[in-house]
Amino acid sequence: MRLADLDEEAVLARLLPVLLHDEAPGVPVGPGDDAAVVEAPSGSVVATTDSMVLGVDWRDDWSSPQDVGHKLVVQNVADVAAMGARPTGLLLALSADPATPVEWVLGLAEGVAAAARESATPVLGGDLSGAAAGSVVLAMTVLGDLGGRAPVRRSGARVGDVVAVCGTLGRSGAGLRLYLDAELAAAADRQAPEAAHRLRSSHRRPHCPWQSGAEAARAGASAMLDVSDGLVRDAGRLARASGVSVDLDGAALRAETHGDLLDVLGADAALREVLGGGEEHALLACFADASRLPTTGAPWRVVGRVVERSRAPVLLDGVPHEVAGWDHFAG
Amino acid sequence: MRLADLDEEAVLARLLPVLLHDEAPGVPVGPGDDAAVVEAPSGSVVATTDSMVLGVDWRDDWSSPQDVGHKLVVQNVADVAAMGARPTGLLLALSADPATPVEWVLGLAEGVAAAARESATPVLGGDLSGAAAGSVVLAMTVLGDLGGRAPVRRSGARVGDVVAVCGTLGRSGAGLRLYLDAELAAAADRQAPEAAHRLRSSHRRPHCPWQSGAEAARAGASAMLDVSDGLVRDAGRLARASGVSVDLDGAALRAETHGDLLDVLGADAALREVLGGGEEHALLACFADASRLPTTGAPWRVVGRVVERSRAPVLLDGVPHEVAGWDHFAG
Repeated sequence: MRLADLDEEAVLARLLPVLLHDEAPGVPVGPGDDAAVVEAPSGSVVATTDSMVLGVDWRDDWSSPQDVGHKLVVQNVADVAAMGARPTGLLLALSADPATPVEWVLGLAEGVAAAARESATPVLGGDLSGAAAGSVVLAMTVLGDLGGRAPVRRSGARVGDVVAVCGTLGRSGAGLRLYLDAELAAAADRQAPEAAHRLRSSHRRPHCPWQSGAEAARAGASAMLDVSDGLVRDAGRLARASGVSVDLDGAALRAETHGDLLDVLGADAALREVLGGGEEHALLACFADASRLPTTGAPWRVVGRVVERSRAPVLLDGVPHEVAGWDHFAG
Repeated sequence: MRLADLDEEAVLARLLPVLLHDEAPGVPVGPGDDAAVVEAPSGSVVATTDSMVLGVDWRDDWSSPQDVGHKLVVQNVADVAAMGARPTGLLLALSADPATPVEWVLGLAEGVAAAARESATPVLGGDLSGAAAGSVVLAMTVLGDLGGRAPVRRSGARVGDVVAVCGTLGRSGAGLRLYLDAELAAAADRQAPEAAHRLRSSHRRPHCPWQSGAEAARAGASAMLDVSDGLVRDAGRLARASGVSVDLDGAALRAETHGDLLDVLGADAALREVLGGGEEHALLACFADASRLPTTGAPWRVVGRVVERSRAPVLLDGVPHEVAGWDHFAG
């Protein structure tokens, strides 16, 4: 059955039971009215929007609809977490070719609902519309609450701060390489099949340690963002916003390759993915010194230091490092 | 120049100066970080998402990019206003074929910015991504604040309430008919060219009396929504949510046709547009009696009465009236 075979209300009647939590504390008005109402106990609200597009951000031959829904939630929740906030609700706009199978849309809703539950984020509302043939576009907004803390911006890094990460690096990028490079994939599936499987999963369903965003804020993080376009590119953004440079520690980053990345890619390619791999949604934050890193929750590791602004925003062991990463139009 | 000729940061460097207000009170963190922060003085936030899709919600031969941006803001602000809130910020996700002219995107941003200024809604953030050939999809989220009032839901109408509208009815639908029906348009352009021009404009740039939403809430409105899919269809939604029926007053609705609608369409077709025309974004609200209608701001007119639930959710002068309106997939 395709979307075109049902009217909008019939589609919603199938989707809403999948999307709605059994209980949604903090949501006085949920989906179904002109707009939702969600509590904002701090008297302010954190808000971010991020999209996924069929053929650009996912391929149906790699990713199940559940994967797509999961990833969309994670990348938006990561942005809220990177401000030091906890997510309080999400809205989803789905524009789809009317020939899209209803089963695909229900699978998407399952993925959204599962990831929303994992991050304790109630579904507040959404919008359904038709789109051109072959087009499926998802846009999600996630709201969050700062718990009375100041937002942790990109611009607060100070010379002398340590730079630390929470969550994994390079795994999503390595999974993407396995999808794109048949020769690499064949070798990996012979030599390290379980590691290759896990890396592909990390690409389809990245993980963000979202609770660690608020923990970093409580611990006094001076600056933070999530690694969505690659460590070097995102560290460069933080450096430029703060008027500093970030000197990454090669030995610490090589330690990040241990395990699946090293087993599948070898040392050099594994390090390249740690430095440049996107869609990982680890948190990258600066702290006055290493003793300030949060010690509860997912582990933080020091991977560099904030230094005086130099020729390049990002250095690797003191040497300017070229920015690599993903651009949405230039590819 | 096409989007593909610029990288994402170059596109943003052109867009952001167009989109950002000179000052944005109530926005501690604007665009450029992982997420924005906006004040929520009531301790809760109203949130809604609505999309527009090229070829489905607009055609480039009718609508300028400024028109599209304007309409997208208005339809979202209308949803916030219909809860009794004032808008506090918006986020825009744009997914576009990389062949889309940069000029079109800048025109869209101009339309968004102008309508955002008219509704005192700062731009909080957004997302840019590529899309399939021929595809342009816009998704907007608007946030709002209730000023300490309870939200006005669809479900609060009580038997005996008067049903009133604020803003126009049928004008957007009439403009759409002029675009779709060449014969009608030729006759209108001979007999009432200025009226026809104004109706086409109303389709491309509908108007929502957004400040009247909060005024209705202050005046004690029992239920409210905005007329996005046609008066009968939306009154039916309010009726079903409230467990009542709405009896519309034919004489009052014929009075709504006076002027451009009557001049261009004649009496019968004008009344059909008042009853069924979508994308108008008037506010429809219920009040305990006619003496309660807000008397400041845009005028409210009584167009019906809430009655006991009967066979049909909507009656016209006591006779069940078929629901007419727009469905996004079935067309």
